[in-house]
Amino acid sequence: MAGNTFGTLFRVSTFGESHGPAIGCIVDGCPAGLPFELAFIQHELDRRRPGQSSIVTQRKESDTVQVLSGVFDGKTTGTPIAFLIPNEDQRSRDYEHIAEAYRPSHADYTWQAKFGHRDHRGGGRSSARETAARVAAGALAKLFLNTLGIRVQAYVSQVGHLALHTPYAQLDLQQTDSNDVRCPDPLLAEKMIRLIKKIRKAGDTIGGVVSAVVTGCPAGLGDPVFDKLQAELGKAMLSINAAKGFEYGSGFAGVTMTGSQHNDIFLPPAQPDAPLQTATNHSGGIQGGISNGMDIYFRVAFKPVATIMQEQDSVNAAGEAVQVKGKGRHDPCVLPRAVPIVEAMAALVLADHWLRQQLNYQER
Amino acid sequence: MAGNTFGTLFRVSTFGESHGPAIGCIVDGCPAGLPFELAFIQHELDRRRPGQSSIVTQRKESDTVQVLSGVFDGKTTGTPIAFLIPNEDQRSRDYEHIAEAYRPSHADYTWQAKFGHRDHRGGGRSSARETAARVAAGALAKLFLNTLGIRVQAYVSQVGHLALHTPYAQLDLQQTDSNDVRCPDPLLAEKMIRLIKKIRKAGDTIGGVVSAVVTGCPAGLGDPVFDKLQAELGKAMLSINAAKGFEYGSGFAGVTMTGSQHNDIFLPPAQPDAPLQTATNHSGGIQGGISNGMDIYFRVAFKPVATIMQEQDSVNAAGEAVQVKGKGRHDPCVLPRAVPIVEAMAALVLADHWLRQQLNYQER
Amino acid sequence: MAGNTFGTLFRVSTFGESHGPAIGCIVDGCPAGLPFELAFIQHELDRRRPGQSSIVTQRKESDTVQVLSGVFDGKTTGTPIAFLIPNEDQRSRDYEHIAEAYRPSHADYTWQAKFGHRDHRGGGRSSARETAARVAAGALAKLFLNTLGIRVQAYVSQVGHLALHTPYAQLDLQQTDSNDVRCPDPLLAEKMIRLIKKIRKAGDTIGGVVSAVVTGCPAGLGDPVFDKLQAELGKAMLSINAAKGFEYGSGFAGVTMTGSQHNDIFLPPAQPDAPLQTATNHSGGIQGGISNGMDIYFRVAFKPVATIMQEQDSVNAAGEAVQVKGKGRHDPCVLPRAVPIVEAMAALVLADHWLRQQLNYQER
Amino acid sequence: MAGNTFGTLFRVSTFGESHGPAIGCIVDGCPAGLPFELAFIQHELDRRRPGQSSIVTQRKESDTVQVLSGVFDGKTTGTPIAFLIPNEDQRSRDYEHIAEAYRPSHADYTWQAKFGHRDHRGGGRSSARETAARVAAGALAKLFLNTLGIRVQAYVSQVGHLALHTPYAQLDLQQTDSNDVRCPDPLLAEKMIRLIKKIRKAGDTIGGVVSAVVTGCPAGLGDPVFDKLQAELGKAMLSINAAKGFEYGSGFAGVTMTGSQHNDIFLPPAQPDAPLQTATNHSGGIQGGISNGMDIYFRVAFKPVATIMQEQDSVNAAGEAVQVKGKGRHDPCVLPRAVPIVEAMAALVLADHWLRQQLNYQER
Repeated sequence: MAGNTFGTLFRVSTFGESHGPAIGCIVDGCPAGLPFELAFIQHELDRRRPGQSSIVTQRKESDTVQVLSGVFDGKTTGTPIAFLIPNEDQRSRDYEHIAEAYRPSHADYTWQAKFGHRDHRGGGRSSARETAARVAAGALAKLFLNTLGIRVQAYVSQVGHLALHTPYAQLDLQQTDSNDVRCPDPLLAEKMIRLIKKIRKAGDTIGGVVSAVVTGCPAGLGDPVFDKLQAELGKAMLSINAAKGFEYGSGFAGVTMTGSQHNDIFLPPAQPDAPLQTATNHSGGIQGGISNGMDIYFRVAFKPVATIMQEQDSVNAAGEAVQVKGKGRHDPCVLPRAVPIVEAMAALVLADHWLRQQLNYQER
Repeated sequence: MAGNTFGTLFRVSTFGESHGPAIGCIVDGCPAGLPFELAFIQHELDRRRPGQSSIVTQRKESDTVQVLSGVFDGKTTGTPIAFLIPNEDQRSRDYEHIAEAYRPSHADYTWQAKFGHRDHRGGGRSSARETAARVAAGALAKLFLNTLGIRVQAYVSQVGHLALHTPYAQLDLQQTDSNDVRCPDPLLAEKMIRLIKKIRKAGDTIGGVVSAVVTGCPAGLGDPVFDKLQAELGKAMLSINAAKGFEYGSGFAGVTMTGSQHNDIFLPPAQPDAPLQTATNHSGGIQGGISNGMDIYFRVAFKPVATIMQEQDSVNAAGEAVQVKGKGRHDPCVLPRAVPIVEAMAALVLADHWLRQQLNYQER
Repeated sequence: MAGNTFGTLFRVSTFGESHGPAIGCIVDGCPAGLPFELAFIQHELDRRRPGQSSIVTQRKESDTVQVLSGVFDGKTTGTPIAFLIPNEDQRSRDYEHIAEAYRPSHADYTWQAKFGHRDHRGGGRSSARETAARVAAGALAKLFLNTLGIRVQAYVSQVGHLALHTPYAQLDLQQTDSNDVRCPDPLLAEKMIRLIKKIRKAGDTIGGVVSAVVTGCPAGLGDPVFDKLQAELGKAMLSINAAKGFEYGSGFAGVTMTGSQHNDIFLPPAQPDAPLQTATNHSGGIQGGISNGMDIYFRVAFKPVATIMQEQDSVNAAGEAVQVKGKGRHDPCVLPRAVPIVEAMAALVLADHWLRQQLNYQER
Repeated sequence: MAGNTFGTLFRVSTFGESHGPAIGCIVDGCPAGLPFELAFIQHELDRRRPGQSSIVTQRKESDTVQVLSGVFDGKTTGTPIAFLIPNEDQRSRDYEHIAEAYRPSHADYTWQAKFGHRDHRGGGRSSARETAARVAAGALAKLFLNTLGIRVQAYVSQVGHLALHTPYAQLDLQQTDSNDVRCPDPLLAEKMIRLIKKIRKAGDTIGGVVSAVVTGCPAGLGDPVFDKLQAELGKAMLSINAAKGFEYGSGFAGVTMTGSQHNDIFLPPAQPDAPLQTATNHSGGIQGGISNGMDIYFRVAFKPVATIMQEQDSVNAAGEAVQVKGKGRHDPCVLPRAVPIVEAMAALVLADHWLRQQLNYQER
C-alpha cells in the first residue's frame, strides 16, 4: 500500500517529483465554509522556499501555488482542494553524474531496491522538494486551526553543538522569523549562521534540532490506543526528510526522573467546571495519548544533509567502486527550512484530530 | 475516527478494558498457510505477564490466550485470527478510591475530557493491560517474520541513570532474558535490579530506555513519503504506554555530526548483484524511509510509572482538591515488561511493510 | 488487503468460522454515552437465529451474545465493543463428505483458489453464520439510530414468482414479523410459506427479494463522489451471502421512463426553512448520492440456496468427477432470515454516514 | 470522512468542479515498471468526451489529459501518478438562473443541505464531468490489466424500452464502438439512436442499461466477507452519476429459479490441475464473493438525465415556488458516454483486487 496520504479525516495526498512538471497535493476532508486565504498559504511556502537567504540552497524556485478546486466565493466548499506548484528550475544535468551512482546516505539505493527503477533527477520523489506540498496543505490546516484558537510555532533550537537551553516559555517566539536561521535567540542565531557558513565553506553539512509548541489546544484530542496524539505527531515528524528522532514533554531526559519528580500535579481550578491545569508539564500536554489542555511541546532531531561538496567513495548500480561529489545547489543545513515543515505537519495532525474528536462525544 | 487498529495489510484491532471480562484482538491480513504455534504466542505473553519476577507488579494474571478463529489443521487460513485473554484478577475495589479523583500524570482526566465518562476500574482501556493483546498479535507477526529470516530483539539499555553504552553488536543478546530486568549486560542488570528494588521500597518509580535491533530485514521496506519505515516504527513505539521519545540510527546524537562524518559509505559488493553494505550504519538501516538491508536499530524512552505509593495532591471531578495515593499492585519500573511490547510492535510494523512491499515491484 | 471490516467511522470487524469455537465482532467508533440494551441486541439475533420456525434450517444454535468490552454502567464508553457468540451445534461430520468435493455454486472452489487451503467444516468463514456477527453490530447501530429518529425496516417482497407489488407506504410493516416468512401481506405470506415447504419437500431451494425502507433520515447523508449513499448501501447489501442485485428508488424499472416522468418535483414548504419534500420519490430518497430527507427505499435480490438435497455432478480437488448431495440441516429459502441481516447492514451504513456528516459542515 | 477516494491498493482520488480551472486525479498504488501509454489514456477520454457525436451534449471540451508525475522513461515509477484535465468550455452564465433554484432530481438541494453552501456553476462537483478523471484512472488500470490478460468490455444493452436480449457471448463486442450509441447490435443501435433524437427533440431525456463483461479474470479475486467482488463492483457502478441499480450473473431474474436450476455444475477438467469451468454461469463468474475464473458479467441501470428542456415547477433556497428549465447543452441520454465510465470503474476494481490477491496466498 502506497504511503503518499497522511491523516484520516483531514487528509492530504501529495504527488510529484523534483524535476517533473509540477508537485502538488489534494486536501480532502477540510470542512466547508472555511474562509480561504491564498496569500497566507503562499506566505508559508515562502518560508520554506529555496533561495530565501544566504544560508540555504540557491536553487531558484518561486514556489507559486495555484488552487484548482474546492474553493468558491472565498470559502472552502467541502470538496477536495487541489494545490499545484509548478517546478521551474530543473537543471537535470546536475544529476546526470549520479544516474548510475548511489550517493552515500541518500535514498538512491533504497528506492532502486524498492521499485526496480527510479527517476534519478534531483532525487525524484525522495527529494525534500515534496515537502512544499505538505507546507501548502499545512497552511490550510493552520487556517482551520486559527478559527479554533490553536496555534503551532516551531523554531531552531540547535545547530551542531550550538544548543538553546532556554525553555520555550521564556523565549519570544515572535523573533523566530527575524533571522535567517529561525532561532528566537538573536545572539545564538548569529552564532548558528556563522557556523553554517563555515560548514558550507568546507563543503560539508551539519545537523540540528527543531523545537515546537502548540498552544490553545483543548483537552480531548488524540485517539488511543494506537493513534495517541504523540504517536501521530511522532509519525508526522519522522516522515520529514532527514528526521532522526522525536521526543515530547520530558522526552529522553525524563527517563532518569522518579515518578514523584515527574508527575504533573493537578491544580484546583478557579471554577469547578473550568479546564484543569497542572503545576508542571513534564507530560508535554498529552496524558494517556490525549491532549490535556496544557501546551504541547516536542523536539525533532535532524541529521546533517547527505549531499556534501567533497569526494566520497561509493558504488554504482553495477556494483563497481566509484567516487561521487555533490554538484548543483544544496542546503548546508536543513534546519531553517525545516521550521515551516514541522509546523505544517503538526498542524495537519491537530486539524485531523480536532475533527476526529467531534465524533467521540455526543451529548444526549 | 477511533484509534484501536494498527497496520494496513497485517492489521491488528484490540479491544478490552483492564477490569472487564476479557481483552483481546483480531489480526486480519495474516497470509494463509502460516504454521501456527500457540505455545510460542503464550511464551511471548509470559514475558509480558504480571508477577513474572520480584521487580514487576504482583497482580495475578495467567494471561492464558485462546484462539477463536482463523486457524485450521495447524495453519492460518487467511481469515481473521481472534485472540481472547480472559481477565482473572480484578480487584476493582482497589480503584474505588479514584472513581472521582484524577490521578496525576494518568489518563483519568483526559479520558473524561474525551468521552464524557469512563470506566475508572484499573484505568479501563488506558491500562497497560491492553498491551497483552498487542503482544499476542506481535507474536503472530514474529512467526511470520521467522519464515522470512527477519528477527526483532529488544533489551533494556537504561534504568534511571544506569545506562548501557556498549553498541548492540558487541552484546550477547541471548542474555537479555537471563535476568529479571532484561538487560544483556549481567553486571549492569544486577545494578538495575537493585535500583528498582530501592525505588520501590521508597514507594516511587523510575524510567528508562529500551533499545531494539532488527536483523535480516531485506532492502526495500517502508513507504515514502509519509509511511517511511522510521515513521511507522516511531508511531508504533510512541503508542506504547509511558513512551516519551524515539530515535533511530544516530538519533539525537547525530545532530552534532557533519555530513562527512555521518554519511554511510557503500562498500563494493563481492558479487555485482549482491545486496550492498555500508561501512558505517549511522542511518540505522533506513535511508529515505526505506530499509537498506543493514541492521535497523532504535531506542525508546519510557517515563517513570505515574502510580506511586506516596500521597500526592490532586483534584477530583468536582474540581475539589483531594489527595491520592496508589493502592494495589503496580510496577515500580515498566522497562522489563516493555521489552516484549517493543518487540511486538516492531514485528507488527515489519510484517505489515513486508506485505506492502510485495505490491510495489512486479517483474514483467 | 483483507475484507473483514465494514464502515469508516462506525466500523465493524467480524471474525469466526461456522464450526470454530465462536464467531463475533468488534464495533469501533460507536459514540460514547449511548444507552446500551443487550436485550435488544439479543432480540435482533433471535430474528436471524436458525430453528426459529418450520421453514428455516433446524440447526440448533441459541446464538446467545456476550459483550466483552466497551460498556460501563449501562452506557457505551467510546472504546471498542466486542461481541462474542459461541458456536454450539457443530456437527462437523455432516461436512466430512465434502472435504474434498467442490459443491456447485458454493464458495468451496473459490476459497481454495484464493487461500490455497480452507476450513471446509460448514463452509468455514464463507458460511452465512458469519452474518450473526453483523446482526449484533447492526443492532447496536439501530440503538444509535433510534436516538436520532432514524428507522430501518425490511420485509420479504418476493419468493420465487410470488411477488408483492403493493408500494411500501400502503403496507402495514408492523405485520412483517407476524408470520414466519416476514412478508407484511398475510395472505401472500401464507402462499410463500406453502411454496417454501413444497420446495423443501422436493429437496430443492428458491430465491426471492427483500425490500427495505428507511424513515426519518435527515437530508445530507452520503459522501460523493465515490461513497454516495446508494453506493454504500449497494455494497452493504451485495456483501450479504446469496445477494445478486440491488436497486433503489425507481431502479431497473426507471430506465424506461423519460426525465419529465421521472423527475421529483420539489414542493414549496410550509415554512421557508423547513426541509423540502418532493411530490414523487423516484429518487428513492437519494439525490446526487446524498439523502434528501424523503424515505430511502431499495430492493435486494437473493438467489436460491446452493445446498440442495439432490445428487449433483461435481468435481473434487483432484479434478475427478464426483457426486455431491446436501446433508445436514439447511434453509430451503434464505429470505425470512435475510430480513434482519438487510436491516443490520443498512443500519451500519446509516450510522456510519450520520457520523461522517458531522464533519462536513461547521457553522462559523 | 470525505468520499473522493476509491480503491484500497490501486487507489484513485479525484478533484475538481465542472467550472473551475481543471479536474483531475491522483492514482496511487500503481505498480512500478508498467509501460505507460498516454495515447491510450487519451483514447479512453475521447470515448467519454462531450461533442463526440450528434446524440450527446455539444459542450466543447477537448479533455486533453496531462501527466504531472509518476512516469519516467516511459514507465510508471511506483510513485503517485497525477492526471490533470483543464476545463475549457465554461459558460457559467448558463447556470446563473439556477444559482438559487433547486433543479428537480438534481443534487442542488442535497449538496446545499450537506455543506451549507455550494458551487452552483454547472453542478460544481456533482457534475458528471468528474467522471473524466475516473476514465483517466481507469485507462491506467486497463493498461495494467492488459499485462495480466484481463479485459473489461461494456456496451449499451437498453435505451428506454429498446432492449437487447441476446447474451453477450453471442454478440460481436468489437462492434460496440462502431455506432454512436455503443450498442453492439447494429440494427438495434439504429433504433436507439432514432429514439434518443426523438426524445431530445421533445426536450426530454431517457434512461437505459449498460451491460459489461470481464474476460480473462483468474480465480481468487475478491475479499470476503465485506469486500466481495460483486460488492465492490456494485459500489463502483452505483457511484456513477444516474445509476439506479446493479445486478450480476442471474441477477433479479435469478430469484424465481430453484437451486437445482440455478446451480452451476463443475466440469471435470482436461488436466487435474487445470482451472475448473462450470457448465452454466448463473453465478456471473463470482462464487462466495470470489472470482471463479469464468466470465464476470453484470448490468447497470441508468435513470433518465434530470436536466430537461421543459419548464418544471420547483423551489428556491428561500422556499419560494419557482420554475426552472434546462439551458445550455446537455445529454438527452447518458448511456453512450456511460460505457467508458462503467469500464473504467470495473477496471479500477479489478486492478485493486488483483493486487489484493497477491497478499493472500504465499507458497512456503
